Amino acid sequence: NKEFFKGIGQIKYEGPQTDNPLAYRWYDEQRVVAGKTMKAHLCFAVAYWHSFCGNGGDPFGGATHIFPWDEKSDAVARAKDKMDAAFEFITKVNFPFYCFHDVDVVDHTSDVAENEKRLQALTAYAKEKQAASGVKLLWGTANLFSHRRYMNGAATNPDFSVLAHAGAQVKAALDATIALGGENYVFWGGREGYMTLLNTNMKREQEHLARFLHTAKDYARQQGFKGNFFIEPKPCEPTKHQYDYDAATVIGFLRKYDLLQDFKLNLEVNHATLAGHTFQHELQVAIDEGLLGSMDANRGDYQNGWDTDQFPNNINEITEAMLIILEGGGFKGGGINFDAKIRRNSTDPADLFHAHIGGADTFARSLLVADNILQHSDYKKIRADRYASYNSGKGQEFEAGKLNLEDLRNIAAASGEPSVISGKQEYLENLINRYI
Amino acid sequence: NKEFFKGIGQIKYEGPQTDNPLAYRWYDEQRVVAGKTMKAHLCFAVAYWHSFCGNGGDPFGGATHIFPWDEKSDAVARAKDKMDAAFEFITKVNFPFYCFHDVDVVDHTSDVAENEKRLQALTAYAKEKQAASGVKLLWGTANLFSHRRYMNGAATNPDFSVLAHAGAQVKAALDATIALGGENYVFWGGREGYMTLLNTNMKREQEHLARFLHTAKDYARQQGFKGNFFIEPKPCEPTKHQYDYDAATVIGFLRKYDLLQDFKLNLEVNHATLAGHTFQHELQVAIDEGLLGSMDANRGDYQNGWDTDQFPNNINEITEAMLIILEGGGFKGGGINFDAKIRRNSTDPADLFHAHIGGADTFARSLLVADNILQHSDYKKIRADRYASYNSGKGQEFEAGKLNLEDLRNIAAASGEPSVISGKQEYLENLINRYI
Amino acid sequence: NKEFFKGIGQIKYEGPQTDNPLAYRWYDEQRVVAGKTMKAHLCFAVAYWHSFCGNGGDPFGGATHIFPWDEKSDAVARAKDKMDAAFEFITKVNFPFYCFHDVDVVDHTSDVAENEKRLQALTAYAKEKQAASGVKLLWGTANLFSHRRYMNGAATNPDFSVLAHAGAQVKAALDATIALGGENYVFWGGREGYMTLLNTNMKREQEHLARFLHTAKDYARQQGFKGNFFIEPKPCEPTKHQYDYDAATVIGFLRKYDLLQDFKLNLEVNHATLAGHTFQHELQVAIDEGLLGSMDANRGDYQNGWDTDQFPNNINEITEAMLIILEGGGFKGGGINFDAKIRRNSTDPADLFHAHIGGADTFARSLLVADNILQHSDYKKIRADRYASYNSGKGQEFEAGKLNLEDLRNIAAASGEPSVISGKQEYLENLINRYI
Amino acid sequence: NKEFFKGIGQIKYEGPQTDNPLAYRWYDEQRVVAGKTMKAHLCFAVAYWHSFCGNGGDPFGGATHIFPWDEKSDAVARAKDKMDAAFEFITKVNFPFYCFHDVDVVDHTSDVAENEKRLQALTAYAKEKQAASGVKLLWGTANLFSHRRYMNGAATNPDFSVLAHAGAQVKAALDATIALGGENYVFWGGREGYMTLLNTNMKREQEHLARFLHTAKDYARQQGFKGNFFIEPKPCEPTKHQYDYDAATVIGFLRKYDLLQDFKLNLEVNHATLAGHTFQHELQVAIDEGLLGSMDANRGDYQNGWDTDQFPNNINEITEAMLIILEGGGFKGGGINFDAKIRRNSTDPADLFHAHIGGADTFARSLLVADNILQHSDYKKIRADRYASYNSGKGQEFEAGKLNLEDLRNIAAASGEPSVISGKQEYLENLINRYI
Ligand SMILES: [Co+2]
Ligand SMILES: [Co+2]
Ligand SMILES: [Co+2]
Ligand SMILES: [Co+2]
Ligand SMILES: [Co+2]
Ligand SMILES: [Co+2]
Ligand SMILES: [Co+2]
Ligand SMILES: [Co+2]
Repeated sequence: NKEFFKGIGQIKYEGPQTDNPLAYRWYDEQRVVAGKTMKAHLCFAVAYWHSFCGNGGDPFGGATHIFPWDEKSDAVARAKDKMDAAFEFITKVNFPFYCFHDVDVVDHTSDVAENEKRLQALTAYAKEKQAASGVKLLWGTANLFSHRRYMNGAATNPDFSVLAHAGAQVKAALDATIALGGENYVFWGGREGYMTLLNTNMKREQEHLARFLHTAKDYARQQGFKGNFFIEPKPCEPTKHQYDYDAATVIGFLRKYDLLQDFKLNLEVNHATLAGHTFQHELQVAIDEGLLGSMDANRGDYQNGWDTDQFPNNINEITEAMLIILEGGGFKGGGINFDAKIRRNSTDPADLFHAHIGGADTFARSLLVADNILQHSDYKKIRADRYASYNSGKGQEFEAGKLNLEDLRNIAAASGEPSVISGKQEYLENLINRYI
Repeated sequence: NKEFFKGIGQIKYEGPQTDNPLAYRWYDEQRVVAGKTMKAHLCFAVAYWHSFCGNGGDPFGGATHIFPWDEKSDAVARAKDKMDAAFEFITKVNFPFYCFHDVDVVDHTSDVAENEKRLQALTAYAKEKQAASGVKLLWGTANLFSHRRYMNGAATNPDFSVLAHAGAQVKAALDATIALGGENYVFWGGREGYMTLLNTNMKREQEHLARFLHTAKDYARQQGFKGNFFIEPKPCEPTKHQYDYDAATVIGFLRKYDLLQDFKLNLEVNHATLAGHTFQHELQVAIDEGLLGSMDANRGDYQNGWDTDQFPNNINEITEAMLIILEGGGFKGGGINFDAKIRRNSTDPADLFHAHIGGADTFARSLLVADNILQHSDYKKIRADRYASYNSGKGQEFEAGKLNLEDLRNIAAASGEPSVISGKQEYLENLINRYI
Repeated sequence: NKEFFKGIGQIKYEGPQTDNPLAYRWYDEQRVVAGKTMKAHLCFAVAYWHSFCGNGGDPFGGATHIFPWDEKSDAVARAKDKMDAAFEFITKVNFPFYCFHDVDVVDHTSDVAENEKRLQALTAYAKEKQAASGVKLLWGTANLFSHRRYMNGAATNPDFSVLAHAGAQVKAALDATIALGGENYVFWGGREGYMTLLNTNMKREQEHLARFLHTAKDYARQQGFKGNFFIEPKPCEPTKHQYDYDAATVIGFLRKYDLLQDFKLNLEVNHATLAGHTFQHELQVAIDEGLLGSMDANRGDYQNGWDTDQFPNNINEITEAMLIILEGGGFKGGGINFDAKIRRNSTDPADLFHAHIGGADTFARSLLVADNILQHSDYKKIRADRYASYNSGKGQEFEAGKLNLEDLRNIAAASGEPSVISGKQEYLENLINRYI
Repeated sequence: NKEFFKGIGQIKYEGPQTDNPLAYRWYDEQRVVAGKTMKAHLCFAVAYWHSFCGNGGDPFGGATHIFPWDEKSDAVARAKDKMDAAFEFITKVNFPFYCFHDVDVVDHTSDVAENEKRLQALTAYAKEKQAASGVKLLWGTANLFSHRRYMNGAATNPDFSVLAHAGAQVKAALDATIALGGENYVFWGGREGYMTLLNTNMKREQEHLARFLHTAKDYARQQGFKGNFFIEPKPCEPTKHQYDYDAATVIGFLRKYDLLQDFKLNLEVNHATLAGHTFQHELQVAIDEGLLGSMDANRGDYQNGWDTDQFPNNINEITEAMLIILEGGGFKGGGINFDAKIRRNSTDPADLFHAHIGGADTFARSLLVADNILQHSDYKKIRADRYASYNSGKGQEFEAGKLNLEDLRNIAAASGEPSVISGKQEYLENLINRYI
């Protein structure tokens, strides 16, 4: 078997003081934090598309990453080389999971049956690789946005024949996911939105989307799939507006169309910030509904208005995210998929390793910090105490629906001007840094 | 009676060719468009707060607008002067409606009973002014964000005693609105959100908000109020994050908490753009749910990230908005309230007139343009034709829920690669300008 | 000769009332406005790259526009077909100018001499086409951003051997521009910036850029080139930060490095808005320095943070731009190049025509409106009057440098609190709409 | 003497492991880093305006911070109380410096002479307090933006009589700064910009600004002032556009108007991000010109488009800033002024302490991290090596201006396609976290 990442061996945990850039400083997979191993908390996954297909191209330039696994002329043989490289990499960084789109795994054509055949061939190959390595599939998905036919949408395309093709792709991707024991299945609707409202029947398109999701879910359940379905919100790009704008919008959609039983959210950091939210906000919105399924880990650039998908490195920000995830009970079915890409000019083979090591260490360190904060500081107590007035007396009656508006008025008139209570924001911000 | 806007008489319609800056060029209230008068389509309202209370101050400077109606030392007498000025202005610009917050009408204290007494005194006075002028109240509301006590929220305040005060204010404002025959009642939750998630129980706060809205609604219905309740979305400012972020978020909230029967949306242009949406988008989202109640008309500055609340003047943008409103059947209960303020340095008394005239003319002209487009162009047909594949055959079966995923796959395999269909965006954009 | 845009003939002026979507409604090239023909005011140019090379691809999907002129396997033959199509289109829309990058005209290789040969072949061909059609070259440029070698910059590349290649390309592009009688030469430094400051010596890179521009300018002047050099500012994309951020930054750079004699600005609308400015602002900055060379006309999407390069359609915005251009004396050497692309899903051959017609009509109409405002309203007088206090007396002395700080203090103490003078913003905004 | 911050004593350094929230964990003023004490590196200053005048008000609400030093009715007596409180606080947090605007120190009237008298009274009082405490004045400034008269600008006001008042205020503020041994003098032109270009002669306004700065500088030099003048850039707010947009714009202005000898920059973090830059970028721009004078330390909110002026807390971001400052040789004359405010709802007296402690510790820790990176890692070497090709041979000749464009072409043709060199961004980002 060819080695694609020559000269780079197994990445190991060496501790915070190591100067080896090809070692983990914080990610110690068997270390137990809050009753679980780091591995079980974080469920790291490598994203097939960015890591093994992303060629460094951007809207202003062609490929810069030239892959040795892209050389063969036969599509299936080439795809197997890529899969060899992928499993070599995933094994070397010691991640338990990977994620893919159908077209990441093997190039697609315009022929439905041929595509199915190709994907099945690679599914069989992946099954062997998974068994040999112990690596598992966190989730599968179908790419319903790159092909020219989806330029006006997939499940929301005004032309039913395009929607049918989307159905064909989803069916094959579900079959592959199930065959590989995939734990979840994701929908990211990159083209499910509009370029201009002037030509768009938004209502009808959204009804089609809901119908399509029901149809896909019903099929998967009939095939015995027990995992979660995830919607991944994003506000825009490539479309001017994407229907799955943010967590609140998607949850409203799932509730309206009776999809809450089967669907949860896969939240991406850079999609949160493009939507005008902190990632922490999106996490909290999902957790408050019991719908935090999984995470696409990356970071955006606060000065650039597109999806830069950089690897995460900000300790303060990830610590605040891990606080919410830990307090909220973790992911429901999913994990932390690095939907992140090395830069166009990161052309050394080692760069892909540095990127994943840095990302994993940032999360591992933040997990430790967050756990310390929750275990040893007054962080939780301060928040709980703020709401104490609703735990008894009239506040409790209000929560229970026992007070009417005149009651509220009379309580206010009787009690006079309330005292002023600090929100202690600066104190709490210092507390975070106390533990980093 | 003192005249506050001396030297400016009744603003009249003089037609597009007039060079009189104190005349309407497009707003001809009795002109019939699409079966209704302009007046009935547009339902223009003057906003009490910006026009008669807004002193030109901003975070970096004090008052620049010094009002002759703010001179008396007695709060009620001063409030009556302001109301005289307000009705003089509303009558001179010939708007059918006005809107207010409780504290716009008369200064409030920390004493619940005293506030009620003051508001009642002014309510009685307003009743006379309305009767004399024919001007009506489009909606009333309570200001639950300016007073120090609301610095941590009103209905979402962690301290129940603050929530009770919010209840007292809403009760009095509902009483006033009902007494004045107000057609709607608005909730804008300026402080219903958070400054930092670190100290916030978002779930509990949102449950309190829902409970509070039910409580207020129940009271008003018991008092015989038949009008609509509106939520006005805004993403942030003054808070870091406001729960009523945008139309989709508010609709999700109303659906979750069973408020859809009584509540609709009051959409503000500048709030749409702060939330990362076009105003057209927000209108369409509301209309698709039958929830477009009313509009706060203004415009933001695309380079400034706060609520500039400028008067609208962009014909292309307002035409696209009016297209959606006209096609969607207009407002449900509300109208077009100019929640807009003249600039800090617009210190001539005439500036307030220019601002309202310009805003009204922009809407009136856009109404005419939009009606022409709908009546005389192929605008609607182009959009309808795009979705024709769902009107019969397999597309229709899909909409009816009769196709499963395997059906879709088989249809795709049998029909082959779909043909490419242009979205005709540039054609449609030209069509708009054809009618301006 | 093959006809590439079959079924679409010569686009003619038919006047505002025409319903023919393939006619000009406002652009009447021989109509005289403010002493010059519309053609001479506007100098419309077609952009070779978007119109004949742009395949509709975006970061999330491949080509959607499949061109009949891209079919031949020989690069030069294929390039000639493309040039035939280009001149057919430019002639049909009746634009006087076009613009190109070297690699738009013919595909480049990694071989410097072969690239020169190819470009010379096409230059000869273009010369014939120009002579036959009367179409002229507004400006030429070299694409120093798409090739992999430029991933770390061109003139600012840390590796000198890449800078040398940039020099080779610029030399060939200058030779072609001069051979074709091009009136100007443009530098857009798409990769002249950084992806991260952590690896960047910004000072040294900017010094290299200045040196490179001097070197290129000196060569062109030696070859007898009399035209202008333009820098096109853009704040970012594809880089995280681009050195030619905006007009003020570029002017500061030109002044620092002694390039003001030969270089002016080519301002793009969408680059202005990405930099946080209105386009009007960028125009005024350039005009105030006598440096408005040319314009890349398009529009961005205010909700999307990347360069959407849509065709312009907003009458209010373009009118405000034309006011500044007209008052400022027009372009110095350049014109209005439509650096704009039809949407990914605008796949009808007619869409390219609709786009250019709509863009040209928007500018032509705005030119007429702006001229009316300048000729017939008090627009200029209002502004001039605002500054009247500096035209005589102490204000004039201040401008002449005759007052010291103590003088100012004494004038203030003597004259007391100044009177308040309105900025009349709403009046002026209404005035614009009066003339649209 | 009254104690205003009762119950809070001297803030001391206790080390990273302390759980005392009212102690420094990293700021150990006498600790030597890179040859200087922390105190000398950081030169921390308290901002008078936010800390002792800022009442928690915002555009949607009134004061929440009610100060015990604001109670007396006599303006000068009240101002002395405030100054007592200020020096108590500055001494307790052990900062070596403070900064003020004239109107922070004592309330101003509309009378020039009375204002001078008041300011002189407080200057005398401050002189005593400085002598007693050892606290020094980092810089003084005049507030030329809050008073109504400046609504159309101060030095750029279209009305000369307003400019004269600005001159009077600057004279008095310079006199006070000089009397107090202030080390620098700052100009922040909050209203030096425009609300709309429609009424603005930008060129003339900028010429007035330049003239005004020369006039003020000349006066101060005549009075013997040896310190620096600083311009503080900000892109907008309160104006739509502010002329001192960002570092590059201000430097261009200073160069054009021959002010580079006396003026440097005071960079504010939140102003950098409002202008679309990282703070690191602004620092590098200033340092590359030798113009980094001082810093206003704070942070913005990446989701809120206004100047939130929060206290800094992000270790990654401040570390990247300190790397640039350390490598660039530190501040020229200035220091780190906390132009930051506690939140509206931070109403405990201790909150002001937490805020300053957290900010100071973030900088102190980042200084240590940055020094470690510079001393012990290959961070500097990696960057230097990237540019090695310009240190000798043809690259060096290019830098020396010895190569013409044909030389570059011939070098490229002879050397062939350059090799691909990684930018190592992820490696460098990991390296930062290695040292945090
Ligand atoms: Co993702
Ligand atoms: Co992404
Ligand atoms: Co509003
Ligand atoms: Co608003
Ligand atoms: Co351009
Ligand atoms: Co562009
Ligand atoms: Co500042
Ligand atoms: Co600030």
